[in-house]
Amino acid sequence: MLARAITLVESELPAHRDDSEALLQAILPATGGAVRLGISGVPGVGKSTFIDRFGVELVEAGHRVAVLAIDPSSVLSGGSILGDKTRMAKLSRDERAYIRPSPTSGNLGGVARKTRESALLCEAAGHDVVLVETVGVGQSEVMVREMVDHFVVLMLSGAGDELQGIKRGILEVADVLAVNKADGPNLAAAERRASELRSALKLMRGKAAPPVHLISAKEGTGLAELWEALQALTEREKASGIFHRRREDQAARWMRQLVEETLLRELRAHPVVGRAWAAQEAAVRAGERTAAAAARELLAAFRSDGEEAQEEA
Amino acid sequence: MLARAITLVESELPAHRDDSEALLQAILPATGGAVRLGISGVPGVGKSTFIDRFGVELVEAGHRVAVLAIDPSSVLSGGSILGDKTRMAKLSRDERAYIRPSPTSGNLGGVARKTRESALLCEAAGHDVVLVETVGVGQSEVMVREMVDHFVVLMLSGAGDELQGIKRGILEVADVLAVNKADGPNLAAAERRASELRSALKLMRGKAAPPVHLISAKEGTGLAELWEALQALTEREKASGIFHRRREDQAARWMRQLVEETLLRELRAHPVVGRAWAAQEAAVRAGERTAAAAARELLAAFRSDGEEAQEEA
Repeated sequence: MLARAITLVESELPAHRDDSEALLQAILPATGGAVRLGISGVPGVGKSTFIDRFGVELVEAGHRVAVLAIDPSSVLSGGSILGDKTRMAKLSRDERAYIRPSPTSGNLGGVARKTRESALLCEAAGHDVVLVETVGVGQSEVMVREMVDHFVVLMLSGAGDELQGIKRGILEVADVLAVNKADGPNLAAAERRASELRSALKLMRGKAAPPVHLISAKEGTGLAELWEALQALTEREKASGIFHRRREDQAARWMRQLVEETLLRELRAHPVVGRAWAAQEAAVRAGERTAAAAARELLAAFRSDGEEAQEEA
Repeated sequence: MLARAITLVESELPAHRDDSEALLQAILPATGGAVRLGISGVPGVGKSTFIDRFGVELVEAGHRVAVLAIDPSSVLSGGSILGDKTRMAKLSRDERAYIRPSPTSGNLGGVARKTRESALLCEAAGHDVVLVETVGVGQSEVMVREMVDHFVVLMLSGAGDELQGIKRGILEVADVLAVNKADGPNLAAAERRASELRSALKLMRGKAAPPVHLISAKEGTGLAELWEALQALTEREKASGIFHRRREDQAARWMRQLVEETLLRELRAHPVVGRAWAAQEAAVRAGERTAAAAARELLAAFRSDGEEAQEEA
């Protein structure tokens, strides 16, 4: 039933929109009970193995886990590399867990919206831990940060990704970091890496620097400590009120974003504006017309259509 | 006359808008002849001293220089720390140069718009080098990058700003870097810094890594070489067509930005939407209403007002 509800919410058919909105409105009182965790990291960091093992430990401890994904590559290619259930072989066979492949249609903003709404459905279905997975290579982690309570970033001890991580701003939004593959002959390098990260984070974020854990998803080490740290963080933030305030702020920002995105989408899809746009842009590019004058005409075209529709009615 | 024209363009009085647009449209054919340079760097890097000395050298070589500024702090405080003519003591006394203090009213986007339009006026008035100065501490350098041909970033040999520079993405948009205060006992540290920067830039940008110059604005060293490098860059980019294409793309993006910003500003200033917003946001924050349903009602309120106005007319 959860799967069917998510399929309805993910549908882009206009006919499904009213049902989808009514469903979400109906289940809203039953949502909010889960802890929502974002899981990010560059490709190859071991996110699937981590979620598989971490998820199994959580369900064995009595939790019901839901896994959702925002995969920027699936939006581009139409095929999800993340959403493959087989890569979380153990967790996907467990009835206490639900794994949803990443939606592949729509733009990244649309996919983020569907994932947000799917998370609400998972909560209403009784899942108390929602993991939202994303690849740390662009905008998607900012979107995921906006829909979760805590953001976990997995790192590797290899070179190269540090600079990328800083560049992408991922270290600025992380609540907890974990250096993965801290096992066997790789342990010493992982320890050095954790210590480098701690210094860099202290420089960047001072007292707000997040903790850096050492884990091995393959061996299962460090996962219990990571979960304990996340639970302690949740408790602290609930006591201080931050936890709730952040969710409220996220919901308010989401509403604003939906209003603004919908309005701009209507502008772009507007047939009269679309026809005028090419001509105005060509004049602006050629230096024959100021951008301000062209913009004013395009907005007039957008407004006048409402009036025309009114006149026709 | 240039100063008065800029004052008109900067004016926020609705009565001045038509005159301002007509003026800009009229001078448009006389624009585009200058090379537009963005100058950025953290506070204390010596931007004023650099522009003063660099500007004087340019006017002495026969150029007519205009200096504009986008100062995020002036937008917040209403007073400009950058726009003070006295800090460019020599250049401001030269009749071949024009220095405009940073506009202090409006939001950063509005200030960027005014600066863009002021730059056009400077070009029409015969200035062939337009320097747009900004503090490298946030969004403003992205805005300046969108209105200039080349972006020059000044750096220091001191510690701390490197991480900040990478974090802020300023190194990603720089065309030319210059380590300032490369003089006296500081020369060796500046050389080390330049060499570190070259390595970091090569990692980040590969073949597109910008050159790193050593300069001393105080002593005047390295400025001629910097200007030569900028001229060579202009020539290369004009020959390849990039120079012109970038300006066209900037103009087209500016038009889109004006359309979208104006529409969103109308949404925010809309009295009916404004009244409905608080109630909808409260319901969304309280978890009583989905963001999608609230957004849909707010958009309906925005649209229906056009219809009401139509009915009244």
